[in-house]
Amino acid sequence: MPSPRRRTSLSRPAVSVLRLGHRAGRDPRLTTHLALTARAFGAERLYLNPPDPELAARVAAVGRTWGGSFEVVGAPNWRVPLQEFPEAVVHLTMYGEPLERRFAEIARAPRLLVVVGGAKVPGDLYKRATWNLAVGHQPHSEVAALAIVLDRLLGTPGPKAWAGAERVIVPQARGKKVRTARSRRPG
Amino acid sequence: MPSPRRRTSLSRPAVSVLRLGHRAGRDPRLTTHLALTARAFGAERLYLNPPDPELAARVAAVGRTWGGSFEVVGAPNWRVPLQEFPEAVVHLTMYGEPLERRFAEIARAPRLLVVVGGAKVPGDLYKRATWNLAVGHQPHSEVAALAIVLDRLLGTPGPKAWAGAERVIVPQARGKKVRTARSRRPG
Repeated sequence: MPSPRRRTSLSRPAVSVLRLGHRAGRDPRLTTHLALTARAFGAERLYLNPPDPELAARVAAVGRTWGGSFEVVGAPNWRVPLQEFPEAVVHLTMYGEPLERRFAEIARAPRLLVVVGGAKVPGDLYKRATWNLAVGHQPHSEVAALAIVLDRLLGTPGPKAWAGAERVIVPQARGKKVRTARSRRPG
Repeated sequence: MPSPRRRTSLSRPAVSVLRLGHRAGRDPRLTTHLALTARAFGAERLYLNPPDPELAARVAAVGRTWGGSFEVVGAPNWRVPLQEFPEAVVHLTMYGEPLERRFAEIARAPRLLVVVGGAKVPGDLYKRATWNLAVGHQPHSEVAALAIVLDRLLGTPGPKAWAGAERVIVPQARGKKVRTARSRRPG
């Protein structure tokens, strides 16, 4: 099922994300933030290398509450997802070309795979990627870089309930307000 | 010393960031990413509550290599930094008003404090903040939310060396290239 925004924005690319070098035991929060950022900014799925079923389950629980069809898919071999996106792999790296320089090209692709690594990435990723692009040329965060790219490609979603959501936020100047969404999943 | 971009962009706010609820022992990477994101996207400093001198030292080392004057400042009492930014505190929360709704107001402030919390924040923060603003109304990441706000306020920096940098990246379509910066710090 395409994400809610995808249906009404046919000119925007359908984006998947690949996260390399996840360390399940050591620091699940960072990859959880990456997965939730991918989801919140409209990506369809996160391929996770190596796989982490517990993390995938936690993110799926977020989707049951807040809607949409985002999923975390285990990727034991990171080269496999790349093969599904020929000529459409964006590797985010501080060593790459400025995002702005290639943005018009990547925005034209109907489907994109955005690849983010951790501290070290396999050297041949630079060759296999269609574009190696930098969001700023300073060390910062793959979470930040992914957010910027998705925001530019797909925009930041408004407060409307996502398809199948159980809950939806009612924006407030002060405090918190959450209501039951009208469009629950059938069953 | 103001950051390199601040000097040439007098119409942009000078931004500091306050991070609440840091858990030093548990997960330094997430706050490190937040600090580096604040730095890379042009904030002047990160107030860190509770303080974490080891983290501050690691971020300072990044600054010695890559330039600029960003600093991590320990904040044992989080209300103190707020008092230094009267009428100019932006609290990022998924429960807040859409960023877009108030963006023109925050962009006019000469100085801003952007506050990000962890899973739980003190209830009175919602009252003490000038604005409670959401970057999307879905759960994701304070790193992502901060990046979007700073990108909109200050823009994403290009590949130019920062003041005092030892090293600077030379953007590449493939691979990595780093050169010694011409403008080293004196001494």
